[in-house]
Amino acid sequence: MVPRYSRPDMVAIWTPEARFRIWFEIEAHATDALAELGVVPKSAAKALWDWWATNPAIDVAAIDAIEAVTKHDVIAFLTWVAEQVGDEARFMHQGMTSSDVLDTCLAVQLARASDILLADLDALLAAIKTRAFEHKMTPTIGRSHGIHAEPVTFGLKMAEAYAEFARCKKRLIAAREDIATCAISGAVGTFANIDPSVEVHVAEKLGLSVEPVSTQVIPRDRHAMFFATLGVIASSIERLAVEVRHLQRTEVLEAEEYFSPGQKGSSAMPHKRNPVLTENLTGLARVVRAAVVPALENVALWHERDISHSSVERFFGPDATITLDFALARLTGVIEKLLVYPARMEKNLNKMGGLVHSQRVLLALTQAGVSREDSYRLVQRNAMKVWESDGELSLLELLKADAEVTAALSPEEIEDKFDLGYHLKHVDTIFARVFD
Amino acid sequence: MVPRYSRPDMVAIWTPEARFRIWFEIEAHATDALAELGVVPKSAAKALWDWWATNPAIDVAAIDAIEAVTKHDVIAFLTWVAEQVGDEARFMHQGMTSSDVLDTCLAVQLARASDILLADLDALLAAIKTRAFEHKMTPTIGRSHGIHAEPVTFGLKMAEAYAEFARCKKRLIAAREDIATCAISGAVGTFANIDPSVEVHVAEKLGLSVEPVSTQVIPRDRHAMFFATLGVIASSIERLAVEVRHLQRTEVLEAEEYFSPGQKGSSAMPHKRNPVLTENLTGLARVVRAAVVPALENVALWHERDISHSSVERFFGPDATITLDFALARLTGVIEKLLVYPARMEKNLNKMGGLVHSQRVLLALTQAGVSREDSYRLVQRNAMKVWESDGELSLLELLKADAEVTAALSPEEIEDKFDLGYHLKHVDTIFARVFD
Amino acid sequence: MVPRYSRPDMVAIWTPEARFRIWFEIEAHATDALAELGVVPKSAAKALWDWWATNPAIDVAAIDAIEAVTKHDVIAFLTWVAEQVGDEARFMHQGMTSSDVLDTCLAVQLARASDILLADLDALLAAIKTRAFEHKMTPTIGRSHGIHAEPVTFGLKMAEAYAEFARCKKRLIAAREDIATCAISGAVGTFANIDPSVEVHVAEKLGLSVEPVSTQVIPRDRHAMFFATLGVIASSIERLAVEVRHLQRTEVLEAEEYFSPGQKGSSAMPHKRNPVLTENLTGLARVVRAAVVPALENVALWHERDISHSSVERFFGPDATITLDFALARLTGVIEKLLVYPARMEKNLNKMGGLVHSQRVLLALTQAGVSREDSYRLVQRNAMKVWESDGELSLLELLKADAEVTAALSPEEIEDKFDLGYHLKHVDTIFARVFD
Amino acid sequence: MVPRYSRPDMVAIWTPEARFRIWFEIEAHATDALAELGVVPKSAAKALWDWWATNPAIDVAAIDAIEAVTKHDVIAFLTWVAEQVGDEARFMHQGMTSSDVLDTCLAVQLARASDILLADLDALLAAIKTRAFEHKMTPTIGRSHGIHAEPVTFGLKMAEAYAEFARCKKRLIAAREDIATCAISGAVGTFANIDPSVEVHVAEKLGLSVEPVSTQVIPRDRHAMFFATLGVIASSIERLAVEVRHLQRTEVLEAEEYFSPGQKGSSAMPHKRNPVLTENLTGLARVVRAAVVPALENVALWHERDISHSSVERFFGPDATITLDFALARLTGVIEKLLVYPARMEKNLNKMGGLVHSQRVLLALTQAGVSREDSYRLVQRNAMKVWESDGELSLLELLKADAEVTAALSPEEIEDKFDLGYHLKHVDTIFARVFD
Repeated sequence: MVPRYSRPDMVAIWTPEARFRIWFEIEAHATDALAELGVVPKSAAKALWDWWATNPAIDVAAIDAIEAVTKHDVIAFLTWVAEQVGDEARFMHQGMTSSDVLDTCLAVQLARASDILLADLDALLAAIKTRAFEHKMTPTIGRSHGIHAEPVTFGLKMAEAYAEFARCKKRLIAAREDIATCAISGAVGTFANIDPSVEVHVAEKLGLSVEPVSTQVIPRDRHAMFFATLGVIASSIERLAVEVRHLQRTEVLEAEEYFSPGQKGSSAMPHKRNPVLTENLTGLARVVRAAVVPALENVALWHERDISHSSVERFFGPDATITLDFALARLTGVIEKLLVYPARMEKNLNKMGGLVHSQRVLLALTQAGVSREDSYRLVQRNAMKVWESDGELSLLELLKADAEVTAALSPEEIEDKFDLGYHLKHVDTIFARVFD
Repeated sequence: MVPRYSRPDMVAIWTPEARFRIWFEIEAHATDALAELGVVPKSAAKALWDWWATNPAIDVAAIDAIEAVTKHDVIAFLTWVAEQVGDEARFMHQGMTSSDVLDTCLAVQLARASDILLADLDALLAAIKTRAFEHKMTPTIGRSHGIHAEPVTFGLKMAEAYAEFARCKKRLIAAREDIATCAISGAVGTFANIDPSVEVHVAEKLGLSVEPVSTQVIPRDRHAMFFATLGVIASSIERLAVEVRHLQRTEVLEAEEYFSPGQKGSSAMPHKRNPVLTENLTGLARVVRAAVVPALENVALWHERDISHSSVERFFGPDATITLDFALARLTGVIEKLLVYPARMEKNLNKMGGLVHSQRVLLALTQAGVSREDSYRLVQRNAMKVWESDGELSLLELLKADAEVTAALSPEEIEDKFDLGYHLKHVDTIFARVFD
Repeated sequence: MVPRYSRPDMVAIWTPEARFRIWFEIEAHATDALAELGVVPKSAAKALWDWWATNPAIDVAAIDAIEAVTKHDVIAFLTWVAEQVGDEARFMHQGMTSSDVLDTCLAVQLARASDILLADLDALLAAIKTRAFEHKMTPTIGRSHGIHAEPVTFGLKMAEAYAEFARCKKRLIAAREDIATCAISGAVGTFANIDPSVEVHVAEKLGLSVEPVSTQVIPRDRHAMFFATLGVIASSIERLAVEVRHLQRTEVLEAEEYFSPGQKGSSAMPHKRNPVLTENLTGLARVVRAAVVPALENVALWHERDISHSSVERFFGPDATITLDFALARLTGVIEKLLVYPARMEKNLNKMGGLVHSQRVLLALTQAGVSREDSYRLVQRNAMKVWESDGELSLLELLKADAEVTAALSPEEIEDKFDLGYHLKHVDTIFARVFD
Repeated sequence: MVPRYSRPDMVAIWTPEARFRIWFEIEAHATDALAELGVVPKSAAKALWDWWATNPAIDVAAIDAIEAVTKHDVIAFLTWVAEQVGDEARFMHQGMTSSDVLDTCLAVQLARASDILLADLDALLAAIKTRAFEHKMTPTIGRSHGIHAEPVTFGLKMAEAYAEFARCKKRLIAAREDIATCAISGAVGTFANIDPSVEVHVAEKLGLSVEPVSTQVIPRDRHAMFFATLGVIASSIERLAVEVRHLQRTEVLEAEEYFSPGQKGSSAMPHKRNPVLTENLTGLARVVRAAVVPALENVALWHERDISHSSVERFFGPDATITLDFALARLTGVIEKLLVYPARMEKNLNKMGGLVHSQRVLLALTQAGVSREDSYRLVQRNAMKVWESDGELSLLELLKADAEVTAALSPEEIEDKFDLGYHLKHVDTIFARVFD
């Protein structure tokens, strides 16, 4: 976790305090269920909850000190709780194994993290939607290969982003479901020393589903899928960030990140207004994606469990979720405040001397009976002249002066092909597909 | 694609012939829809289908030769088709762009590949299920950290694998849905030159859903999610493969890959029976996973499209699906024919002098009123003696001879804790969760 | 391997024929050494070489057919050779293990592949150097964050690429040295059944160094380093490819990939001239990099060896080297034939109304006694006006009209800061560092 | 950075204080050089060093507060230093750009980190060497595919690890050289506003080499190579860690991590002694490797620079070096204190009824004139009986009772093939190669 790329709500999920609080809840709910079964005295569960009702501070340092001796985190925690609660605490953790606590806790943390990320996605979707409708009909050049192609609208660019993040949301909902499971099945997952009903009870209390079969640990294919999904979302962030970076290039300048009054672009060059937020998002996407491969490598644990996954998750559980939360929020801010320059878009759109309309002419020639190959040749030879003039010649004028072209199309027919509205006639259809 | 790690049905999806056939279908269905709209003559569509009805061979070499000149694959294909069909073919591809053909074709290929992989998963699940029920109650030692823990059954190991691959199947269904979309939206995706109804028609004919908004290309977050899902499945394959490799170790030998009569394990050591299939699966898992990162890197295409994704997909579209298909089939064979040795499992289970029952004694001591810490100390000091004897001492006998222990538990009570059935009493519950 | 991204010399290294030829040479050289030691008759070695001198064709299909029965590739090969050579062949492979042959062969293949890649790098370096000197003093705008910064030359861009690929060459030489080792140490690497002098002999004959200690296999950290190095080279290719893609953007157009007469940019838009080669290189970089993670995962083989690395290397040994060879050659062609447009560079350089000179003014103000903060404020307020005018206002004129500025600097002093030559005065120094 | 996986010396390199101290040194050395050139007054340099000589505390919070306004870290730092030093500080940073400071600082940090890692490798190599010589002749079974193969010694296993980490050291020295460069070249790297001699001076003072050509930033192929090298080292750590994990398996138990008196293996099962350190190292290897792909993705910055690399390096600069330092130290401790059990090794070695000697018999048969195929068949049929008896039958006895075998070899000749010393005769040679 890098503080400058983090937000407090997500960070709070991953503090030692938060973890120990979840551990307590798991243990206490389990003790309730064990008491219900008559395995432990009801007074034991009561003692735990009574102490909890005092809203006790978690003394992380004290627990760490015990762990320094026992070299076992859950035993250290249980020992500390027993010191606080007293003799009744000895019934806690009956028949459970550390993984029951650790893995169920991780499920709670990742589920909570998912909820924040889902809210982030909602905010991002809302921001994109607003800008999409604002610029639904703002014409701009569409580019393939970085080269001017045909007109689109800025709203369409936003609609594409909206559809992409809507897919991301759907995927994250599935990934959340995948990791939000509870395992209280004891050593090697057989329930030998703990009744399955305890698991059912704890799962219900924590809002998790029951892990159908655990091998002591919750299987790591679930986590692999979760982190892979975060990696896909990060890649979609990168796509939109790269779009903004392209639009802000000096020569393009169709949009710009908001530039606050106190901000300095460069220690050396005062005129610089750099797309630093979206460049940063490009880097953060790499950071989030870095969790994907280790998560995949974590799946093949040995036999009923080994603990190699643990250190990986200590890094990437927090890092990937905190960074993605930050990145989604940053991107939302970028989109909300993005300076959009329709006049510049129009200027760029017109700079190629009408080349963007070449395809329509091509089609018109074909429909007028010219062979496809000839049509292509006729359009291309005029287009090339325009291209080489750096937009100073006009395709429209050249075509009207080309005898082979005018043999097939009248000047009026040619002019008709240079209408911008023609390209935008289905924007409504697309918006309806995306937003309705 | 490495021939030895491939199967013909999956390979067939990725041949040039197969690709060109799909291209033709896309073009011909689109021509139908264009004819219906009156954009092109119905005779054009008819001419295409009439030719197709002759079941013409696709002359890949001829198309390649044209591409060598035009440096454009779709134009080369259209030119070749036009040579075959004649003049009516000039109406083909009206208002479309290459990506409409290429991306929709890739969607068809990945959907077909998914169908094979889903069938593979079904076969694997069936194999696992059979072995699970066969060995539902075959006791074997459960291991954590590679160290004997407590008893499980071999059927439980299979049940875990079943649940994992059932999740994989669910994920693959979602991933298939994600990539099975059709885009016929023309240059930069605006439908300027082609009515959206053409896309709807082609999608329906090809069993795809309609891409709500394309940017000329189908957005690559879909493909990233698809390949990430393959990577997760590969990791689950690795987990089960590693399990078999562990079980086949000389010192463990609880299971073995089937060893055919003609097979030689080593050019030097004739006694070797190596788990080469599952070692191979471990490697193939790495190969499939290798597609994940490039697929994530493919998402951030520039503006409405660039073509950097294309070469990546030419490699990993075939490689990842062909290899995963092969791996799933190989794993299915391994599981179906796996030699399982219950006698050896029992022997291993008993070799630690009863240490696997230590936790039950610990719990019994606690429940008899001994503090958790003292219980732990009592059990551990006897357990350590057994451990250091390499299983020659018996934990049961040592405990019955430990005065502090017998002060809390009678010999009969101690003996009762060494019952194997105790550990297996919830196997039915778990099986019901997994298989019902 | 994807044929369109491959070149014959590199492909030839990875054919079954090539592999079997190397196997034979390893076996025959080893037999020589064994004969020298008196372990096998000299006639055995002679028989092998006599047969080899007939330049026999390798019947791959026959060997494959034997492998289909034995399920062991080296035994299949030895069997086939024995069929050709006759009875004397039984002395071949004495005391050796399959890995001796396989791993030493892979070392030969990777060393040969390295030699091709090193030649590729030499050709690329030569091409870059030519263009660097050609455009040593061609001014062009330097950009940070995609925003105009200060002037550089196109030659400097080339010099940077030259230095980067010179580093890549140095790294590849080290990586080649790392993988070019010979292991003929027998089962588990103890030389129990084969004298170390055999290894020394074979190593010398094949131009390899001796593996100091093998564990039956050559340790895979060597290969991991090799493929990681290829991944770095691929990333450097991507950097230069992305540079070209940026320069070719419609709005920038300072350079263009060569566009051959017969080439068509788009099936729909005849005016398009797309940077498809460098986009392709961007994708191929992802493909080559995909080998890095599996190669790292291959390192941790179990004990003295497992065979999980093998399938990974069957894919990425050929794929990574063939693709990188192709990519280097393609990049060389792009650079050699790159259309460079100095006039457009000059036009772009001037379009920001002199903003690129802002820093010099800032420094001059500071040196004239204005505080850094005030200097920054003065320059920025004028720069912002220019920026917002889209280059229509002139920074020079604004500064000369700003009383606070002229209080510190005379008009002549200000004008002096707008000299382009000022920025290029150290180009010679840099070129000397890079090319001398 | 996860505190439990970190050590203070490496952490200290990455604190804000350490970074700001390096920044100051870069700026002050540069001011010296500028003063020498007469660009700034010598009093300016003196003022900086006079203040520095007071050993001032770095007020990180104050600098952060300034950055919160300026949104630019280097300007914030310079502003704070100016507040401390006074008016003379305005000459600082003349002609420099932020990247000069940031990138040169990162070079210093990575070079220092490399020095720690190199010392870690030395310590690890020393520990491995000690254990190698201690167990140079301790026989143990060599395993391929997890299956008993032929005898090796535990010292040989250590020698293999030694050779591998010696290679890693060599690679890290090269990687350190690759990243330890100094760039003080000003905006876009042209030295327009700063003389190249400043760079030479700062480089010399900081123990760095001069970056031949920078593009404002130090090219990121250097860092990619550095992190890739760390990834290879991590993979070698994983290999040795996995070896220990295998050796500690209950059924194998040839070695064990040291188990301290207070340590508890499991909250539930007191007999457990788990290889948790090496399992942890397996996970940490994944963490270090996670830096490789993002570092490769960082290479292709846009034009003269973008800042997408920065956030990636803020994470993985510290995380990869801190984690690798911790992992190397942990592995050193594991090796130093590893409990090695020669008696158990001998027991395991003998458990296969002599199967490990099968190859020698095979060779003896061949040399006695039996065809290779027949020899193989004879040995394998007896070996299979032993194998199926789980080591209860003896290969030696079976062979002596096999008429076809005794037709070729006398009983004495057969017995001679079962000599363990035969396998260890070249251990000296290998040790000489590795350690001399």
